[in-house]
Amino acid sequence: MNAPERIWNHQQRNRAARLERVRLQLGADLTGKILPAARAGDLLHAVLECGDRVCLEGNNQKQADFLGKTLAALDPLRINQLHMLQSVLALPEHLDVFENGIASKLDFSFSGPQAARLARLVSSRKIDIGAIHTYLELFGRYFVDLTPRVSLIAAEAADRHGNLYTGPNTEDTPAIVEATAFKSGIVIVQVNRIMDVLPRVDIPADWVDYVIEAPTPYYIEPLFTRDPALISEIQVLMAMMAIKGIYAEYQVERLNHGIGFDTAAIELLLPTYAASLGLRGKIARHWALNPHPALIPAIEAGFVESVHSFGSELGMEPYISARPDVFFVGPDGSMRSNRALCQAAGHYACDMFIGSTLQIDLQGNSSTATLGRIAGFGGAPNMGADARGRRHASPAWLKAGRQAGEGRNRMPRGQKLVVQIVETFREHMQPAFVEKLDAWELAEQAGMALPPVMIYGDDVTHILTEEGIANLLLCRTDEEREQAIRGVAGYTPVGMARDHRMVENLRDRGIVQRPEDLGIDKRLATRDLLAAKNMKDLVRASGGLYMPPERFRNW
Amino acid sequence: MNAPERIWNHQQRNRAARLERVRLQLGADLTGKILPAARAGDLLHAVLECGDRVCLEGNNQKQADFLGKTLAALDPLRINQLHMLQSVLALPEHLDVFENGIASKLDFSFSGPQAARLARLVSSRKIDIGAIHTYLELFGRYFVDLTPRVSLIAAEAADRHGNLYTGPNTEDTPAIVEATAFKSGIVIVQVNRIMDVLPRVDIPADWVDYVIEAPTPYYIEPLFTRDPALISEIQVLMAMMAIKGIYAEYQVERLNHGIGFDTAAIELLLPTYAASLGLRGKIARHWALNPHPALIPAIEAGFVESVHSFGSELGMEPYISARPDVFFVGPDGSMRSNRALCQAAGHYACDMFIGSTLQIDLQGNSSTATLGRIAGFGGAPNMGADARGRRHASPAWLKAGRQAGEGRNRMPRGQKLVVQIVETFREHMQPAFVEKLDAWELAEQAGMALPPVMIYGDDVTHILTEEGIANLLLCRTDEEREQAIRGVAGYTPVGMARDHRMVENLRDRGIVQRPEDLGIDKRLATRDLLAAKNMKDLVRASGGLYMPPERFRNW
Repeated sequence: MNAPERIWNHQQRNRAARLERVRLQLGADLTGKILPAARAGDLLHAVLECGDRVCLEGNNQKQADFLGKTLAALDPLRINQLHMLQSVLALPEHLDVFENGIASKLDFSFSGPQAARLARLVSSRKIDIGAIHTYLELFGRYFVDLTPRVSLIAAEAADRHGNLYTGPNTEDTPAIVEATAFKSGIVIVQVNRIMDVLPRVDIPADWVDYVIEAPTPYYIEPLFTRDPALISEIQVLMAMMAIKGIYAEYQVERLNHGIGFDTAAIELLLPTYAASLGLRGKIARHWALNPHPALIPAIEAGFVESVHSFGSELGMEPYISARPDVFFVGPDGSMRSNRALCQAAGHYACDMFIGSTLQIDLQGNSSTATLGRIAGFGGAPNMGADARGRRHASPAWLKAGRQAGEGRNRMPRGQKLVVQIVETFREHMQPAFVEKLDAWELAEQAGMALPPVMIYGDDVTHILTEEGIANLLLCRTDEEREQAIRGVAGYTPVGMARDHRMVENLRDRGIVQRPEDLGIDKRLATRDLLAAKNMKDLVRASGGLYMPPERFRNW
Repeated sequence: MNAPERIWNHQQRNRAARLERVRLQLGADLTGKILPAARAGDLLHAVLECGDRVCLEGNNQKQADFLGKTLAALDPLRINQLHMLQSVLALPEHLDVFENGIASKLDFSFSGPQAARLARLVSSRKIDIGAIHTYLELFGRYFVDLTPRVSLIAAEAADRHGNLYTGPNTEDTPAIVEATAFKSGIVIVQVNRIMDVLPRVDIPADWVDYVIEAPTPYYIEPLFTRDPALISEIQVLMAMMAIKGIYAEYQVERLNHGIGFDTAAIELLLPTYAASLGLRGKIARHWALNPHPALIPAIEAGFVESVHSFGSELGMEPYISARPDVFFVGPDGSMRSNRALCQAAGHYACDMFIGSTLQIDLQGNSSTATLGRIAGFGGAPNMGADARGRRHASPAWLKAGRQAGEGRNRMPRGQKLVVQIVETFREHMQPAFVEKLDAWELAEQAGMALPPVMIYGDDVTHILTEEGIANLLLCRTDEEREQAIRGVAGYTPVGMARDHRMVENLRDRGIVQRPEDLGIDKRLATRDLLAAKNMKDLVRASGGLYMPPERFRNW
């Protein structure tokens, strides 16, 4: 049984060899773990080996952009066939590494801004996609079968020992670094500055190999900022339906909102419409959410008790620091975010996910995949899935489970509320409801094993449009489900093809609800209901603490 | 909108007041953050306030037992109504705090050894149970609506600044400390020793308030050690069926095993039976698993490529350190475990969970809850649930999904394999198969909202007994499912009540498979197939590196 000749520390030996190469080639420029930015390319040439699994920190907001650019500029004759692991493909250099022949394989979660170029690179065989993941799933694989050999990370600051301060934008860093450092991998960090004493230590120096002060601060995207001026009255009406027909109906206390104007409208109606319904302290108390500026009025109105965040949001830092009863804030006064733990919280400790999508089919499957674009889904599949491992009860979860189980011979259980909120027509009059998702054709084009569905129909509990709410929990047959969906699909071809008698029957049974069925006066659905009507109102609501990025300011 | 008079830092002020109380009462004995053990009770009296949410680190293995004992000995006139948050109730003092009137409410995940006493305390109204959770769910709530005000933690060592070394038994510590430290809570740690220089830093000193060198090292339980001498030939037969009928059939490469002799038998058959089937390198390559000693022969035989762990296992430390290609090992040479991240990996990056249970009903629902005992479920609900947010494909996951979808009008998707492996009769001839779970009556007795089910029937894909395998994925009606379960339930009343003709029909369709249907010769199912037959064999297989705890040694 014993194989005494077998070597059991290949990874440690290989790590030592890489560190030794760096010492020989760059030792003169190294001060402890710190290397000048000018030597970054040489460092990567010395550390990397062909075929390495490399995790480049490119996530929802913060980007290790300097290291990404450096990677893209390496010599493909020396370094090639890299297998890139990445939460998000956001920057052009994330695809340059493939175009330049340095990397060939990709496992990722989201590629919004680069989705079209990614599709082109896949079809020209420059990129072999391993799989598209939800964030927490990708992190999980870092500890199982996709452990990074080298990780390229971004932090706010390092001290001279190599301890890191990631501050409000901690995001994916702890999960990536832990997987790499404890499997004899190599962790390289770009920091905005080197400090003598850090405000706090977020990553211990023991877990870090090399630190580079980048020529410019890392790039960061204000992804969750929505200007209230752009919210339409249709969105106000939908927000009213959401609040009265779902939040109040199920007593939703713990939740997550997707990105978008639909959910921003809900956030801005909490202190006005929801307060007028007497819902303060009864709904929307605890959040797993990035610090959305649109949430400021609800926080100020005392609606919000706590917010734990995946990442931060540009311009919200001073406001967050001044509201430590609400946000997770360190002893240094800045926020702590953590995408892995917040995704776990969103999955297991929230009663509702509400978000938007591009296409919904007749079974309620939804997808943001459209032809010619490989976009991925980010956190939505994790937040928008029933957490079947959940065991603690709450009124919202029990009620949803009761509705799903009524008349069925099954073990009673709870269920997560998963709401898709969409206008029946999106931009350019594209219908949001379709007979067949584009995902089918995309799967065929890109050779995927399954059509890329963001949220599966059997996890969706409600579909909300300007026409009304379809409660899929109460549907008992595939046909009822289909007609409930057609019944809120408005003037789209899918909506026009409804069986009117059956939809009216579903309405009698409360499966389809119109604004008037909910006692909502459509005439009140005006922008006057918004607690903030523009960016300046948000700043005012924050007492001047919120400082929107330049592009959101017209004053 | 603005409420300038409102205070937004209650938590920070309250924290400062607690720290000030400590300074006034114990300042003379404090050296930085370090306090002598003799003052531990005074520290808790000074820090705690009535009604506090207190997280006591009591998890699967490592216990903050000194702090737990100190807590149980506080003056209930001064400190009472505490709300305890705990992964595991393992030690008597965990219940003493309730019996002594110090705590009154409990949110937890598992109480195996204390299950009967817990039930008594609940029925005498000494304990109000918030809810029973799966581990990751409880951690998630720490960031949403159950954030600890004070956490009592165990670590291997601290340095004089308060940096912590948690070593191989890191387990729940990072999740608990992060939730507490970044919401202005207070973190108190018992350590086995104070060192000048730590082997590595696992928790930065910034996150820690007080450190106490405990009079004795923290208690730790070798929970995952199973003596191969106690494995029966029935278990060998079941392990053969698991390997040939499930692992090989679905090409299961990434998996988690529950605790028990059934799965230990599988581990010990990998280098013998599975190797004889040519399965090395094809199955069981990547694990989310504690370092089970029974896995040593499979590791030595080159079956196992990687193991990421929730926690460590007593006696395995030198072996783990010598196998860094397999385990997650830090630069200091000791393992890194992390229960939160390993549970995420088990949920999202594994294709199979296989574990045992006490009772299974006719729908396949299983529970370890029995009358008079409130046990909880630990990690099983999370590992044993279909991960509906998962999006990456693997052969095992696609095949399970195809089988579940065959002939159904639904969007194609994958599915996790969830296998329940049980002998038809457990100890004292109690049948494992029942018409109705004890969980129903227990729920009524204890006033639970739902019967405490460990794994729901619709998440179970296979039930494996000594009589055969029931593949529930292929069942198309409730009746087929019921008969498939009866068809492997042996001579239990549930098994005897089978419809023989229907079971034979299910067998023809491959839904029920007997050993002979799988081409397994029952005569080969002897203990000779075990790669190690006793503890000494395990030690030998490890090259003398594994050092079993005293109680497992008879030499």
